[in-house]
Amino acid sequence: MIIVIGSATAKPGHEDAVRDLSLMHVQRSREEPGCIAHNVSVDSENAARFVFVEYWADMPALKAHFALAASQGFVRDLRPLLAENPDMKIFKAAPLKP
Amino acid sequence: MIIVIGSATAKPGHEDAVRDLSLMHVQRSREEPGCIAHNVSVDSENAARFVFVEYWADMPALKAHFALAASQGFVRDLRPLLAENPDMKIFKAAPLKP
Repeated sequence: MIIVIGSATAKPGHEDAVRDLSLMHVQRSREEPGCIAHNVSVDSENAARFVFVEYWADMPALKAHFALAASQGFVRDLRPLLAENPDMKIFKAAPLKP
Repeated sequence: MIIVIGSATAKPGHEDAVRDLSLMHVQRSREEPGCIAHNVSVDSENAARFVFVEYWADMPALKAHFALAASQGFVRDLRPLLAENPDMKIFKAAPLKP
């Protein structure tokens, strides 16, 4: 399983635009093959920072997601609204019992 | 490396109390040995749902975290404020190159 944890910080005044773009992106992504979960949330310590938590079945599914015109359009539309470069961490992950 | 992804949904009217308890918990947890990161955010599709993203060096560090009176106090204080049982997923994770 693949976990992606990303974050993007909006420029002042662009929080709503970043949220709306991000919601469209995560909701669209959930329909893609191999997407187990895809959510965006707002950092409780920084209302401009958006946190993405994604679960993918495998790397091919994630790579197909990255290659989609819609995904690339999201990144292109998002970038000018951000105060800094977005962060993305990708992990190969195996569930453990709590 | 260990990733913990949790979520807790507040009862209506208890969102602020859940946020305040959660912020104290994540900020305290960051000081613990083996805690790489510990953050809470609010689901952009459900303002009552709090998402916890935690990175721990290894399982012993996470188990020590769970065993702390402060951690157990957080769970005890949080539970009556929640609309349903909290969810917690734990993963053994290896970083991959984007």
